Amino acid sequence: MDGAPPPASPAGLSAYVAVSQLLGLTLLATTGAWLGRYRGGVAWHSPLQFNVHPLCMVLGMVFLQGDALLVYRVFRHEAKRSTKALHALLHSLALVIALIGIVAVFESHRTKGIRDMYSLHSWCGMAAFVLYLLQWLLGCGFFLLPGASFSLRSRYKPQHVFFGIALFALSIAACLLGITEMLLFNISDSYSHFVPEGVLANTLGVLLVAFGLVVGYVLTRDDWKRPPLAEELALSMDFKTLTEGESPGGGSQ
Amino acid sequence: MDGAPPPASPAGLSAYVAVSQLLGLTLLATTGAWLGRYRGGVAWHSPLQFNVHPLCMVLGMVFLQGDALLVYRVFRHEAKRSTKALHALLHSLALVIALIGIVAVFESHRTKGIRDMYSLHSWCGMAAFVLYLLQWLLGCGFFLLPGASFSLRSRYKPQHVFFGIALFALSIAACLLGITEMLLFNISDSYSHFVPEGVLANTLGVLLVAFGLVVGYVLTRDDWKRPPLAEELALSMDFKTLTEGESPGGGSQ
Repeated sequence: MDGAPPPASPAGLSAYVAVSQLLGLTLLATTGAWLGRYRGGVAWHSPLQFNVHPLCMVLGMVFLQGDALLVYRVFRHEAKRSTKALHALLHSLALVIALIGIVAVFESHRTKGIRDMYSLHSWCGMAAFVLYLLQWLLGCGFFLLPGASFSLRSRYKPQHVFFGIALFALSIAACLLGITEMLLFNISDSYSHFVPEGVLANTLGVLLVAFGLVVGYVLTRDDWKRPPLAEELALSMDFKTLTEGESPGGGSQ
Repeated sequence: MDGAPPPASPAGLSAYVAVSQLLGLTLLATTGAWLGRYRGGVAWHSPLQFNVHPLCMVLGMVFLQGDALLVYRVFRHEAKRSTKALHALLHSLALVIALIGIVAVFESHRTKGIRDMYSLHSWCGMAAFVLYLLQWLLGCGFFLLPGASFSLRSRYKPQHVFFGIALFALSIAACLLGITEMLLFNISDSYSHFVPEGVLANTLGVLLVAFGLVVGYVLTRDDWKRPPLAEELALSMDFKTLTEGESPGGGSQ
């Protein structure tokens, strides 16, 4: 590869990433349309403070979290250091925005005298946020700070990848639960008559699932994975030779 | 391997599979406890017909579907033909039980004059079932009927695996939505006071997520995947050589 331009991404990958971004923007627009047209809009110091919650969670825990996962596919031939920095930055942004969304719902509940953390939505959503924060801390500790050895990073990486995708799926599930709660609290009498608000919010749910599916497909497709750098490959071969005896499962591959 | 006993499964795999089965049985028991203790039990020709729905969906679309996915890990050293038959059989059983659960809710709605298919739960649940049926039909067509060539099977297999896991996740999300709907329809006044029924049903939701996580981890862990048979490996090498020029993505691996 010396001197040659970096190889282009496969055409299929670019198309799927484009669809994911179109879906992501559409789901943000749909959330905005729902809150703006049917729920009075969004404001902080007002009875509309609650509406900050769904907007921030869809933006932070779904769109930005999803995009943070995609950077290793989109920039699969860029320098690893800068890709990693972008991955960490997008996750940090997602966390901050999600935190604002969580503060909004707790403050709104306090103002209106509504109890916290009793519903399945709140349990799943809080679990997703706390585990996402933990995953971020572990990710920084293992992959950004210089302390962790290559062998330690190699052992943790598959867990980091699995929990990254699992927490993304859990975040989407928590959003679906939130949509259902919000509809049953606000339009329980008319929901079954297919009123426009119900259909719009259901459509938002379907878009969330579609975004999750497309991002999940891009992340898990084998031939779109980031090709290892030459030195990573060499180090990993050394590492494998060193640890071959430790894992009986690894030997049979 | 000629004449030698088949290698044992890695100890970690067995432990994770055991935990998944414990979780699966616990979530069935929890569903039964919820319906039996707080919702009057389960019966077909009675006002309790609705309760057949959650029981069948948890059993079919979660427990049996999850176990059908696990057979290629649990019996990773058995003959492929019998593992495949068990995989297809468990999915068939899951589909039949899910169908009974769907008939139960439609009949119950008809008796009580409740409208169908307006909620996000029904949209996600029906999508999961229809796509699961489609996946089953495609799976039978490609892998059980003798018509499909090895190269066709090899091309379809990654899609089959991805959609298998994605539909399993969507099925769990649909169950979580169903739990939330059922609680908000039945105990909306007391749910926020942490009444036992609400806590039990939320716990069922957490168990569903935990079952999904454990099954997902077992399925995606690289060194627990089924080692390819010698002839599969040889054929796949031939196939790779033949198709190398077709996919620009495949070439860079």
